[in-house]
Amino acid sequence: MNQQRMLIDGERLKNTMEEFADFGRTENNGVTRLALTEEDRRAREYFRTCCEALGMTVKVDDMGNMYATLSGVDNTAPPVVVGSHLDSVKKGGRFDGVLGVLAGLEVVRTLVDNDMTPQVPVVIANMTNEEGARFEPSMMSSGVLSGKFEKSVMMEKKDTDGIIFKEALNTIGYAGDRENRLNKAKAFLELHIEQGPVLEESSLKIGVVESVVGMVCYEIEVTGDSNHAGTTPMHMRKDALFATNDLIAEAREKLSKLDSGLVYTMGRINVAPNIHTVIPNKAVFSIEARHQDAETIKQVETIIEGLPLSIEGCKVKATKLWDRDTVWFDKDVVRSLEQSVTSLDYPYTRMVSGAGHDAQFIANYIPSAMIFVPSINGKSHNEDELTSWEDCEKGVNVILETVLAMIEK
Amino acid sequence: MNQQRMLIDGERLKNTMEEFADFGRTENNGVTRLALTEEDRRAREYFRTCCEALGMTVKVDDMGNMYATLSGVDNTAPPVVVGSHLDSVKKGGRFDGVLGVLAGLEVVRTLVDNDMTPQVPVVIANMTNEEGARFEPSMMSSGVLSGKFEKSVMMEKKDTDGIIFKEALNTIGYAGDRENRLNKAKAFLELHIEQGPVLEESSLKIGVVESVVGMVCYEIEVTGDSNHAGTTPMHMRKDALFATNDLIAEAREKLSKLDSGLVYTMGRINVAPNIHTVIPNKAVFSIEARHQDAETIKQVETIIEGLPLSIEGCKVKATKLWDRDTVWFDKDVVRSLEQSVTSLDYPYTRMVSGAGHDAQFIANYIPSAMIFVPSINGKSHNEDELTSWEDCEKGVNVILETVLAMIEK
Repeated sequence: MNQQRMLIDGERLKNTMEEFADFGRTENNGVTRLALTEEDRRAREYFRTCCEALGMTVKVDDMGNMYATLSGVDNTAPPVVVGSHLDSVKKGGRFDGVLGVLAGLEVVRTLVDNDMTPQVPVVIANMTNEEGARFEPSMMSSGVLSGKFEKSVMMEKKDTDGIIFKEALNTIGYAGDRENRLNKAKAFLELHIEQGPVLEESSLKIGVVESVVGMVCYEIEVTGDSNHAGTTPMHMRKDALFATNDLIAEAREKLSKLDSGLVYTMGRINVAPNIHTVIPNKAVFSIEARHQDAETIKQVETIIEGLPLSIEGCKVKATKLWDRDTVWFDKDVVRSLEQSVTSLDYPYTRMVSGAGHDAQFIANYIPSAMIFVPSINGKSHNEDELTSWEDCEKGVNVILETVLAMIEK
Repeated sequence: MNQQRMLIDGERLKNTMEEFADFGRTENNGVTRLALTEEDRRAREYFRTCCEALGMTVKVDDMGNMYATLSGVDNTAPPVVVGSHLDSVKKGGRFDGVLGVLAGLEVVRTLVDNDMTPQVPVVIANMTNEEGARFEPSMMSSGVLSGKFEKSVMMEKKDTDGIIFKEALNTIGYAGDRENRLNKAKAFLELHIEQGPVLEESSLKIGVVESVVGMVCYEIEVTGDSNHAGTTPMHMRKDALFATNDLIAEAREKLSKLDSGLVYTMGRINVAPNIHTVIPNKAVFSIEARHQDAETIKQVETIIEGLPLSIEGCKVKATKLWDRDTVWFDKDVVRSLEQSVTSLDYPYTRMVSGAGHDAQFIANYIPSAMIFVPSINGKSHNEDELTSWEDCEKGVNVILETVLAMIEK
């Protein structure tokens, strides 16, 4: 059976990845390819050229999403879609997003090399502005497709130069037709780098992603009294930083007793007036927590909302900024991916995604799932982001194997 | 004896204070009168006008310090100097600094009203740029006079608009002669608002200041590893904010066991990248502590330098930014002030100053001391700064009483 197995061309995948890294390559071998910039436009054009060279037709929808279609025997049947995004964050890496799009390209190239006409069409999707690094929010276009975001609101989103999304879409010539939107599909498959250290730590090559974890984010505002650091005795202070110190310690202590899979981060803290000679009168910090189980997230909320309202003479106000339920991927698609990994005999695990991805929104109306490949040192969203070419190749082979199974049925 | 006692005119003091508050008055009844600005120039001109109206001669030295001299019987004798500063911080109060200058003016007005010719000259001093709010450092000109700071370095100090001190001095016409510098004097007396809550809390009216406390300031840099808040398990994190929280808790716990007069503040903290979805890889915070006794400051240093070098997987680096020894005021001058307070029968205490003042530098070469009047709620350096007119009057009466004692000898 192994003799007959169709496999991708790892060397070609690597070369194509490097070609795309040239669209916005930074001096430290990272990539800055913000959505709808000239770098993005050139990447899109080259992607189109590559797809058309394979006889695919490329369409663009009203969010600028690109769909390259390889015809099948039955072109009325829902396609199998492989997709991700070509945009990056500022000074991001060469793998995040682009690997999932080029996985689709390499799969189709392999099919074409093997003179294979699929039973159903195969689509490669490039979703606009997944990162949200130029226009917030992230996963903007998959959000519009799935009904999570209002298109009219998204069109008016501004970048830091005051350019609105709609204008940027027109400028690079990617304002397409609404009728081209991804509609029905047999499956949406997204290969992505893990962006975390779990696979590498366990020497695993593939993560079959069952869900994107739910999360909750709070902002805690602590209000004290600003006074001179030299003239105010300790017992007469209302020091917002000291109160915050107590609160963070208390929250951490309680959160650490919940399920070990819970992750929680106080990533942002701003103190005012932030002068070494003045007692802080204000501190605002974020508490963000993620877990697969709604019950655990509920426990987090109970802990945060149970923090003292007054501490060290300061007032405490906890405001929930947002929450997001866990998205469970389609069981059948997950199982298909797992079968492919098993048949390829790659060491793998089922896992959750701690980060957000287009597939979680697409999952709202199309059976979807994802696989991860290891991120060295868990790094992403920076120039040190790295996945071995061997692991990239393995990931794309899993996608190929799964596409083959789906298009032959 | 009370029938013969010379007292100041409280109503006149109040009116003059209000007149000066017009030079830079803010909409919330505070004052913005940064050093060497147009507001400062107008305040200086009016101060000169008031002094000249009393028959005083006004000279300016090379730092822009103003000295208004009331002739005495023996003009070769060292003068008694009453002084402080007319500049303010941005959105500061109506009392900080200006009270000490106008105390001198009111004292001389009272002497003139009483047709009194002092045995020795009386000088009112306005020291340039005490606040350091426009040009760092604070107490710049008294620092130059006392040899703490290099004049040539100070002249090149820039404000945020890139204007250098020397240029600003010329622009407002206050670049005077070095030979006019305050040289020898019998005493330098500075009345100032307390800028802390101690007097008010104890219902005292006057603080006789024995010393300006010594201090030490450290910067603690904590370096961890920045990773995705959703994809990095807790046990694999090197969270600089969590490490910082531990350090602050440990430092607080240990510092709280030292002398109860010690004050310590972590006023400044900056976390990077300061994004709620990213584990902080860097946190830098200040620890500043003040106490009268060198031994206690030494204990603080031992605690800070004994903080762990590694915690929660993060590296810790403590750097001493600066320290400053306690300045002890002249015992005789302190006693003179205390005798005046006692004879006026105002409730008072001997105390330390937690804040810095020109007198602490002047004390380096002239017998100096200070008195404080209560700051309501301990507020200063903001528009809410307030001292009752009655307390201002009491303070100036103490200065008058002391000047009288010194000029009659």
